[in-house]
Amino acid sequence: MNSLLLVAHGSRREASNEEIRSLTESLRHKDGNCFADVGCAFLELAEPSIPDGIRACIARGATRVTVFPYFLSAGRHVASDIPDEVNSMVEDYPDIEITIAPYLGAAGAMGDLILQQSGSA
Amino acid sequence: MNSLLLVAHGSRREASNEEIRSLTESLRHKDGNCFADVGCAFLELAEPSIPDGIRACIARGATRVTVFPYFLSAGRHVASDIPDEVNSMVEDYPDIEITIAPYLGAAGAMGDLILQQSGSA
Repeated sequence: MNSLLLVAHGSRREASNEEIRSLTESLRHKDGNCFADVGCAFLELAEPSIPDGIRACIARGATRVTVFPYFLSAGRHVASDIPDEVNSMVEDYPDIEITIAPYLGAAGAMGDLILQQSGSA
Repeated sequence: MNSLLLVAHGSRREASNEEIRSLTESLRHKDGNCFADVGCAFLELAEPSIPDGIRACIARGATRVTVFPYFLSAGRHVASDIPDEVNSMVEDYPDIEITIAPYLGAAGAMGDLILQQSGSA
């Protein structure tokens, strides 16, 4: 079973964490979603952690987990912190295929989304 | 003339600020972009500031400026800090129409972008 794990930074402001949980819930039911399961996790300041998020996917039956960094820039969190946490889980679960997708800010379609959201017809 | 001003948080890591400048440059030349001009500005830690970014749009001939908050969550920056800076410019330039678009994280198409970027066919 293929699972998607949306990973956000996490915030002291609980409403920001809830935005991520709502987005995760909407992805679960989205047309065109080929992932059988979608979860979320936070790098810091909110729960679940990345390891706990990956463990939850596996507990729900995942054999492949795609970790998606919901970050706009390729800073330390994307370059090191998330890979470090994911790699420790790869060692713990050698039979599960755990990969990291390109981070959000690298999306080729980001420009289209910005123009759409800004009202450029 | 309609201008779009992409507003990012700004980072101590200059490469992150350059990502924003590159994105801005790519938007300038993008098919389907109805804005005659695209600029960028930063809330903090990088230049130009939001007021300077708006002034630069006006200096290049803008009569309408759409400020786009390139932020993922509706925290204090989106709710207060950016509006405060923009409102002070609205007072300074009563003949220019300056508006704030919905922030990036509120985009209805965000789910599609995530699935696309995660490799969901």
